[in-house]
Amino acid sequence: MPLGEFAIIDRFFRDAGLVREDVVLGIGDDGAILRPPAGFDLIAVSDTLVEGVHFPAGAAPRSIGHRALAVNLSDIAAMGAEPAWSLLALTLPRIEESWLAEFTIGFATLAREHGVALVGGDTTRGPLTLGVQVMGFVPEGRGLRRTGGRPGDLLCVSGTPGDAAAGLASLRRAAGTTCDSPDAAERQLRARFEYPTPRLALGRALRDVASACIDVSDGLAGDLDKLAVASGCTAVLDLDRLPRSAALQSRVQTGGLSARDALRLALAGGDDYELAFAVPPARRAALEPWLARGEVTLIGELIEKQSGEVAEGAEGGNVLLRRGTEPLSAADLRSLDARGFDHFAP
Amino acid sequence: MPLGEFAIIDRFFRDAGLVREDVVLGIGDDGAILRPPAGFDLIAVSDTLVEGVHFPAGAAPRSIGHRALAVNLSDIAAMGAEPAWSLLALTLPRIEESWLAEFTIGFATLAREHGVALVGGDTTRGPLTLGVQVMGFVPEGRGLRRTGGRPGDLLCVSGTPGDAAAGLASLRRAAGTTCDSPDAAERQLRARFEYPTPRLALGRALRDVASACIDVSDGLAGDLDKLAVASGCTAVLDLDRLPRSAALQSRVQTGGLSARDALRLALAGGDDYELAFAVPPARRAALEPWLARGEVTLIGELIEKQSGEVAEGAEGGNVLLRRGTEPLSAADLRSLDARGFDHFAP
Repeated sequence: MPLGEFAIIDRFFRDAGLVREDVVLGIGDDGAILRPPAGFDLIAVSDTLVEGVHFPAGAAPRSIGHRALAVNLSDIAAMGAEPAWSLLALTLPRIEESWLAEFTIGFATLAREHGVALVGGDTTRGPLTLGVQVMGFVPEGRGLRRTGGRPGDLLCVSGTPGDAAAGLASLRRAAGTTCDSPDAAERQLRARFEYPTPRLALGRALRDVASACIDVSDGLAGDLDKLAVASGCTAVLDLDRLPRSAALQSRVQTGGLSARDALRLALAGGDDYELAFAVPPARRAALEPWLARGEVTLIGELIEKQSGEVAEGAEGGNVLLRRGTEPLSAADLRSLDARGFDHFAP
Repeated sequence: MPLGEFAIIDRFFRDAGLVREDVVLGIGDDGAILRPPAGFDLIAVSDTLVEGVHFPAGAAPRSIGHRALAVNLSDIAAMGAEPAWSLLALTLPRIEESWLAEFTIGFATLAREHGVALVGGDTTRGPLTLGVQVMGFVPEGRGLRRTGGRPGDLLCVSGTPGDAAAGLASLRRAAGTTCDSPDAAERQLRARFEYPTPRLALGRALRDVASACIDVSDGLAGDLDKLAVASGCTAVLDLDRLPRSAALQSRVQTGGLSARDALRLALAGGDDYELAFAVPPARRAALEPWLARGEVTLIGELIEKQSGEVAEGAEGGNVLLRRGTEPLSAADLRSLDARGFDHFAP
């Protein structure tokens, strides 16, 4: 017998996050009652995953649970905030207890890791869709935005963009075969898609360092373009400095991926959930520990806004691609086709 | 050429709600920056509408926009809170500018009426789904819950439950015909489904009056059952006292609806977005203005929790149905089949 809506909420989600003292009333009423701390701004983010759009049909439910929360925590990280409370709107075509149990493990494990309580939500019947909303805090007036970058600021990115898109491509290939035997590199790339890491500690560290910050979800070039546009600048991105993981590198070396495809994935693959940000040169020293550990890479700079058609970003072309100090040729640019991933683009 | 995701957000939603001073940063970044007032608890609610489940395929987009926000404002009302900020997760199969324009009018008109700012959200491609989250405030410690009812408390409901379900049935009949000529009563009933009224002023007034409160979304009997269970009581519901609108009454008088069907709609129809609540007898005087205006009706009382199979609620049977002081016969109960609407019920 199928479980009722209320039984689902009770059984799977009531204890799916951390217990927090600032949750006066959690799941089980018409709304949650929450007590925000004094002296902090509230950050609210919302992101939805749809089966077949944001993850392949038949994806592992544990990965779906992880990703549904992770993509929202990544937005919280980009604001420099500390996550606290989440709501989950779960639309399911049918009830499968084993699916729900796995989904909940994925969601709850990440929630507990980052101190997030699940305080409410709803379940409805329909095409598989995960709507998550997360609230968090940042000391008053200190939330990071996309708008504060200035000419001369250094551009940085965390992690190794492109891995997640390579992992997704690998998962898609596997879905079409009966025998799937991924090597270690391929498994690592798949994990970057299935279990992305929201960069919360980095986001908090950037509060007093970055002039502008964005999370890389739609592809590095497109998201840098958004940051540059919001900051009234043009971004210069040095392709020779793009970080590349050993796993992606090995896929190129073994011939599984062309060098051009690897570059396209890094620029426009999407699903990275890394942070891209601008740092005034005077504050560069604060980055050194992150640079030394290889967790952050310098990839370019902001310059005065250039007029005309300069680049390859998703929304208006405000990113100049270079190799070292050399601009790319028009043919190189066309062959890259490094547009950001836009859900409604033609 | 289709609009890009960012163009959609810009064009339709950037000004879709009220401008509020406590919104430090609204739509256009990774998250919203909000400034909660001191001395208040934050109320967070989330509700999702799916095409074909919560509204018929092809429903008027203005109605969909109104309902997506209204069902959430109804939850805010049930907590006794004042709404402030909303997030909209819009999943669309395709971009139609005229549809979006109408949807936005429905959403924004209601948002402005209740002082709600639209501070964020996202758009994705997929089956038509509206995920809305609303945040509001209530003075610290004074949020209404389902749990505070005590034996002897009076049970009340706002409005006239059943109208929305009758309206939905009328809309469904119309969808199957080429000539639709609803009379005034039918138009009124349809409006109760398409444009429900969140009872925010009543919810705030109940802060110091009601011992427990719930919003009636899944059917009066089922939602009263939840309130009774949460309060550790049994609800006694007098069918002779159920409020009935002139429009529904006229549908019965003209033979468009049987008396039994009208009663079933009132008990279990759903989509009412009225408030059902318990009031200690000593505070009854505070209700008089609402009772005198016919905006609230006394429909029963809470009693000590009864053991055994007593009733017809959705989740455990904790509602006793009576006519005056007479219990209904078992056959009467069966014929009513007054279960609450449960999205995953068998």
